[in-house]
Order: sequence, then C-alpha cells, then structure tokens
Amino acid sequence: MGSMTTATEPVRSIDPRTGEVVETVAEQTDAETVARLCAAAVEATARLAAMSFADRAEMLEAMAAALEGDRERLVDIADRESALGRPRLDGEVTRTATQLRLFAAVLRDGAFAEATIDHATDASPDLRRMLIGLGPVSVFGASNFPFAFSAAGGDTASALAAGCAVIVKAHGAHPALDAAVVALLRDAAGRTAAGEDAVSVVYGREAGTAVVADARIRAVGFTGSERAGRMLMDLAAARPEPIPVYAEMGSLNPLVVTPGSAERGAEIAATIADSVLLGGGQFCTKPGLVFLPEGAAGDAVVSALVERIGASDAIHLLSIDIRDTFMKGAAAVAASADAAALVTPSAGTGSAATPALNEVAVASLFGADELIAECFGPAALVVRYGTIAQVVDVIDRLPASLTLSVFAEDAESDAVAAIAAAATERVGRIILNGVSTGVAVNWAQQHGGPYPAASSAMHTSVGATAIRRFLRPVAYQSFTDALLPPALQESNPLGIPRRVDGRLEVNG
Amino acid sequence: MGSMTTATEPVRSIDPRTGEVVETVAEQTDAETVARLCAAAVEATARLAAMSFADRAEMLEAMAAALEGDRERLVDIADRESALGRPRLDGEVTRTATQLRLFAAVLRDGAFAEATIDHATDASPDLRRMLIGLGPVSVFGASNFPFAFSAAGGDTASALAAGCAVIVKAHGAHPALDAAVVALLRDAAGRTAAGEDAVSVVYGREAGTAVVADARIRAVGFTGSERAGRMLMDLAAARPEPIPVYAEMGSLNPLVVTPGSAERGAEIAATIADSVLLGGGQFCTKPGLVFLPEGAAGDAVVSALVERIGASDAIHLLSIDIRDTFMKGAAAVAASADAAALVTPSAGTGSAATPALNEVAVASLFGADELIAECFGPAALVVRYGTIAQVVDVIDRLPASLTLSVFAEDAESDAVAAIAAAATERVGRIILNGVSTGVAVNWAQQHGGPYPAASSAMHTSVGATAIRRFLRPVAYQSFTDALLPPALQESNPLGIPRRVDGRLEVNG
Repeated sequence: MGSMTTATEPVRSIDPRTGEVVETVAEQTDAETVARLCAAAVEATARLAAMSFADRAEMLEAMAAALEGDRERLVDIADRESALGRPRLDGEVTRTATQLRLFAAVLRDGAFAEATIDHATDASPDLRRMLIGLGPVSVFGASNFPFAFSAAGGDTASALAAGCAVIVKAHGAHPALDAAVVALLRDAAGRTAAGEDAVSVVYGREAGTAVVADARIRAVGFTGSERAGRMLMDLAAARPEPIPVYAEMGSLNPLVVTPGSAERGAEIAATIADSVLLGGGQFCTKPGLVFLPEGAAGDAVVSALVERIGASDAIHLLSIDIRDTFMKGAAAVAASADAAALVTPSAGTGSAATPALNEVAVASLFGADELIAECFGPAALVVRYGTIAQVVDVIDRLPASLTLSVFAEDAESDAVAAIAAAATERVGRIILNGVSTGVAVNWAQQHGGPYPAASSAMHTSVGATAIRRFLRPVAYQSFTDALLPPALQESNPLGIPRRVDGRLEVNG
Repeated sequence: MGSMTTATEPVRSIDPRTGEVVETVAEQTDAETVARLCAAAVEATARLAAMSFADRAEMLEAMAAALEGDRERLVDIADRESALGRPRLDGEVTRTATQLRLFAAVLRDGAFAEATIDHATDASPDLRRMLIGLGPVSVFGASNFPFAFSAAGGDTASALAAGCAVIVKAHGAHPALDAAVVALLRDAAGRTAAGEDAVSVVYGREAGTAVVADARIRAVGFTGSERAGRMLMDLAAARPEPIPVYAEMGSLNPLVVTPGSAERGAEIAATIADSVLLGGGQFCTKPGLVFLPEGAAGDAVVSALVERIGASDAIHLLSIDIRDTFMKGAAAVAASADAAALVTPSAGTGSAATPALNEVAVASLFGADELIAECFGPAALVVRYGTIAQVVDVIDRLPASLTLSVFAEDAESDAVAAIAAAATERVGRIILNGVSTGVAVNWAQQHGGPYPAASSAMHTSVGATAIRRFLRPVAYQSFTDALLPPALQESNPLGIPRRVDGRLEVNG
C-alpha cells in the first residue's frame, strides 16, 4: 500500500536520499476510472484466454525484451526512487526478465494446464479437465523489489501466463517506475491479440482498495507488510463473492548455527553478516533471528558478526519512513529487559542508517513481543541457545516464516533432522549450509509459508508453480473434439503432458 | 450444520418417514473434548505424514474394505436416517469405497506430490520441492450423501491421503450413521501407524464451530447450504491465522435444450425429468433451471415434463425440515408474478412430498429473487427463451453453478460453442447431451465452481485432484540425500513422476 498521501493529493515521486519530491507522477485514480479499468480488464482477460499458450509465451518474452531494452532509463528511475543502487537494480531487471521468460517456458511446456482425459467407460461418460485463468487480477508490488516483485514482477508474469489481465496498484515508494514499467508492458501487450489493457495501473490507496473490492476482480497478489496484507485479506473475504489474496508478508527467517559448525565460525559469520546487510537488510528472506550456541565457539561467531556488521557504512534505506521504523524497531529490541545491544544503529542523511545487532538468551526470546517481530532493514537478533532441543522448541513456537537456514557439520545429521522436521511445519524453504537471501527463479522454488509469512501456505509467489494461484479447473463432459480446447482434443495437438485414463503421458 | 438442537440437548437420530426420535446418539461434544481431539489430531497428522505413500494407500483400502464389510448394517442405519432407500444407499457405499481406493491409487501414482528437482547450477543451489499435508482438517458432511459426502466421503478420503488427520462434525440428519462410520475408520486407522485418532468425530453445532476456530486446524471441508458454508468461510477468515474453507454449496445447474434438439423432445424430457427427480431432487447437481425454446417443439417438451414429473409418487425427503423448505420454495416461485405453476407439489406423511414444476419467460427470470434461488428437492423451473443469445446473456448473469448442460444437434455447434464459452466462466463442468446428475469419481472430475457454487473456484471436492486442497509445498535447498524425504532423493526410490531440471519425467 505504502502511499502516505491523502485521498486528494497527487502521487509524488520522492528521492529517499534527500527526502525531496522529484516529480508529480499522476493524480490519484478516481472511482470512475477504476471501474472503467476493471471493465477493460475483463475484456482483455477474454482475449488472453483465447490466445494460444505459444502466443501468450511470445507476449511475455516481448515484455522481457522491452524491459531489457529500456534498462538504463528504468534503472535510473528505480535508483532515484529506491536508493538500492544501480548494480543491484541492474541485476533485478535481469531477474525480472528471466522470470517473464520462465513463465513463457511454463506455457510452452503446457503441464501447468493439468490436462486430464478420462475416456468413456461402461460406467461413466467421456470427461476432460484442464486449468484456465481465474479472471482479472489485482497486483500490489513491494517497495524492496521495484522490478522483481512489482509491476512486471512474479505476480504479474504468472497472472498473464495464466491468461489473466492485471491491474497494478502503483507503489507509493516507486510510482514513477511503476508508471514507466506499465507503459512498456502495455505497449508490448498492445502488439499482441491481448491488447494493451492486459496490464493497467491505478494510483493511490483508495483506488487500490476499490480494485480489490470490484466484483470483476478474481484474485489479488500482494507483497508487503503483514498489516497491509491482512487488511486486503479481510477486504477480499468480506466481498459478496470472496476472492483469494496471495499475500507474501515477510518473515523472521530463523538461522541456526549448530555447535559443530560454530567451529568454522569466522567464515559463517561473514556469510551471515553479508546476508543481513544485503540490500540494506530489506529482503523478506533476511535472516532476522540468528541462533548461536552458548560458550566460546558461539562467542567467537558473535564477535565476528559484531566486527563485520559494526564496520558497515550507513546505507540509504528505501524511504525515510522505513528508516524511521527500522530505528524504532531496533531500539525497542535493545531496550527490552533481557536483550543486549551489540551494534547500535544511527540515522544519517535522508533515509540513511547504520545497522543494528542485538542479543538475547533463548530463554528470554518470548519475553517481549518486539523480539519476535520482523525488523525490516539491516538488523538481526542473535539468540544464544544451550541445546538443539531448545532451538526445536522455539521453531515450533515462532510465527511462521518463509525460510529457515541451518549451518551444520556432516556428523550432526540428527540435529539437522530434528530442526528440519520442526521447520517443515513452519516455513516454506529450508536451507542447509547456506543463507536464505538469494531466491532462484526456477521450477522448484518455494517462496511462501504458513500465515503470517504468507496469506496461504498452499502457494508460492516465486517459481514456475506461482501460476497455479491464478488458475481454476473446468471439465467438459461428452464434448465433440472440435468443440474442445486444443489442450483437451484427442490428438493432443499441443503435444503437452496429459493424464489419460489415469496414466501421466509426456511427449503427447 | 443441520443440527436443530440447542447447546445442551443430546444429539438424537430421527426417522424422516415418521418424524420420530429413534435413538439418542451422543451428548454434544464439550469444549474440553474438542480441544483434546484437536491435540490428538495434530499427533495423528505427524504419524500420517511419516507414513509412506504406500502405507497410507493401504490404510485407505482397509477403510474401503471396512465399509463394504459392514455394508448391510450401515445401509440400514442410513436408510432409517435419510429415507433415501436401500438400493441408492447400497450404491453409495460402493461409490464411497471406490473413492477411498481412488485416493490409494493417487498415492501409489505419486504425481500428486509434484516432486520437483532443480540441480545446482553456477547461478543457483540444489533445490527440491514437494507437496506435503497441510495439517488437521475439519470435515462437515452433507445430508444428501450420507456416505459419499459425509464421514468417509471425498473430503475425508482426500485429506487422509494428503496426510492430514480429520475431525468429522456429525451431521444433524444422520448422526448415528456418522458415529458408525467413524468407528469403522478409527478401527482401520488404529491397525496402521497412523493410529485411530487419524479420524475422530464431534457432535453439535457449537462443537463444529469450535473445531473450525481451533488454531491447530488447518483447513475445512464442507458440503451443504450457502448460508452455513458462508458462515464457516467468515469464521475461518476471521481467525488470527486464517485457513481455507472448501465449501461446496449447491447450485442452479442450468440445462439448455436448443431449438434443434427440442425436436427429439420426448426422449430428452424423460432424461431431464428423471434427473430432476433422482434421489428426491436432493442432488447439488440437479438441473434446477431448464431452458426450453418458445414455440411448438418447446411446448411438447414442457408437456412431456409435466406428464412425467406430475406422475411421480410422493417421495420421502431427507428430513421434515427439508420438505417444509422445499414446499415453501416451490410455492414462492409459483406465486411470483410472472411464473406459472405446471405441477403443484403436496406434502405427505413424515417428510414426504410430490414434485414441483414451474415455468417463466426468459425476460422475467430476473424479476424475482426466488426464481434464481436453488430449490433443494424435486423441483425445476422451466425457462422459455427466444434466442440462444438470450440464453448466453442469462448464463452470464446467473449465480455461478457447479454444472451446465446443453442438449443440441451436431449442426448447432455455433450455439453450443457460444453457450460453452459463457458457461466456462460460470461453472465447473459443462455437459453436452447429458444431464448433470451422476458425478464420476475419476481423474478428470471437476465438482466445484465459482462462488457461490463453491467457496473457491480453484478446487474440486470430487475426483483425484481433490487432494490438492489439503497440500502445501515445502522446498529443501542444498540438502544431503539422506536428509531428504524419499520423494526427493536423487535415485527416485519411489519411482514417482518428477520434474527434474525443468523436464517432466515419468517412470522415474
């Protein structure tokens, strides 16, 4: 949601490095325009649904090429609005294009449609089932990934792949970038049968909630805070016809260093510190809780963390608001009775801040709400534990997360198994001897988790299966071949994987 | 929900043919017991999750055998509580056993787990993803299918297959049967590693809602009225951690006879009438709106319908309450300004009633709310239309349904295509030259639809993919083989279909 403007102010683009307004991007979208865009999205969805999988794949690839073709200008805008720096943003453009191309590959593969044929038997008629697009989708991007989780990000790419038109709510922290990206997407879509209304954009918080409330919208993709995500979930659940909200809402991402691996503490500490500081700590996969053993080996890891995190320069965060919230959160942790401040942050010019590191004993972790709340930004809380059983108990009781990481030696497989068993119930991705930042865009990715990491534990917002969020099944009984969609015609003209009479068949 | 008892009355089994209380089944389950059963379901879920797919399959097959082994006694109880008659109930036991065995086949096939492996590359670490059970599930069965959509029905079978323990809310219309069925399921589960708490039962409305509200419950399966389904949806959405409710809530099931096919009206009329009357019209797939062309051919179909439906004996409905609601609903349609009564129902002894048939012109269909409300029981509303365009317009505007049927000649493919295109947006299953009653239990079945036919358009409550409702993904990054679940180990020890480095591989 992000926009702090009132209902009548225009939408302004602000430079977080200075706090200055650089430009006015647009007026807030009025109710009449919202209604018109929703109607246009219904029409565009019908055209997307009528396109072949291959044509939709080409459209996504054209969108990827359009982003890459305008890379310099887009990175300029994004850097001015996010302060994330050109190298990171340049990489994010590549990642976003890769993501669009992954969904093109998903379409060409065709298994996503789950085409299933049961031929007639003595007991039952011919029945054929496939997944089709759910309908127009509302997308709310994130401040921390202005490309990859925003207007052209995974929600938009997977929704378009599914055959659903998208209405983007421009993010208050990067409205100029969203405007520029949506213009490119509309242009690319306009050169296909889908037409440019396959993607549109609205500005302002009221317009965003009006889109979610509109009866023509069939699903919502959201990346951001738990507060805003839950607000959208409640709004969608209260509609006359409730719709799913796929909200990815951030996470504590526990990271455990076992007693054995603490022996190689210096190397692990460097890895952890870099992960905490990456992108200003503004990743939903940032390791926020670092479990280190009591005793000398753990002490050495703590010292190494303090040294590396304490040596960090000030970092410009995404906005001055985010910096202020970060400073408040880190101070609240440091001030709680049982915690100790290891590195104390300080605010700099504009949105800048230096990192924070605090420490608490495992027995005191649940003593104060701030200790188990996400602190968005370059901060982590070290938790000192005595036994693996204590760590397992804490994992059971912590709010659910996107990820959990464990550093361990080969000989500690019992400890890893115990931690992984507990984590399987509470997170979406479990990492052995690695950190949670760095989310590959591929077929096996899982970026989600039980509530409150995500609105629903059943889906992912990254990776090929993210398309499943925007699909619904339909079955055709006793249809003649010519009246069936190509995916279900007897000869398998698309050559896609299908389940026929109970057997999964690949290579048509 | 169904139970009409207050919070302190015991749960009684009533014979709908007489309205008499036959026995007291149980006390309503108190809050303490609900909490104990939820805790036991968590433990049982952990044991189910640890079982191999093959062991879970054997458990489901043992449950199927247990139902069939006690068929006579179960059919006796079910007939006394539902008045559905022994032949239908005997067939339903077979269907229910078949359903349990289908999910055993789903488990042995293994594709449901969506095992996906992306080996490490220069850019990304080894990542492996699969679907696992969501956690304990609350199941609310239906009055109209005391076996197939109740304690041992599709929700329970698919949840157990997914590795989720089930807490059944005994239905107020057949509590004695639910008690008997759950006892058999517990006995079968008790002979496996899952233990008998894999399935348990609660009695009374308050206990049912207490289970849904319990933090340990992760999903709800429901079959019944829109009012009760929406109540559970709202309850689940308002939890601190919202959970999905899979509610299948009934439907109008439009049926269209094209001008061409009206020529073979006598045959089609017999098929339609039998479908309307089947099981006392108490199917969620009963064709409730029958679109017939204006003119002589349509008139002949109407006459044939009137003759066959008017000749029906009185039928004992599932309960006296259901009969009374049916009579009220049919009378409200007949009384609306633009409708005409073709067959007027009358109430008989106990829960008995004769069928109802009413007629309205297509232009008046949206003139009164009763005309587009489901009338549960042996009733249909004939809608006379002038053009296929009128029918398509109505399909667009009707509440969503589970099914739509169209009877047409080969030469009318344009009409069928137009109707099917509209129906694809509004229903889960489209039938050509057949009726919607009769829902095969197989791989391609789709029993669901957009709201209010179901809580979510994205799933089915019948057929192999019903298991997807109770699964969530988890990914393992850089894990050693021995620490991975068998489904994800490198050698594919289960021999299940997997996607490896982007390629779908069958036969391991």
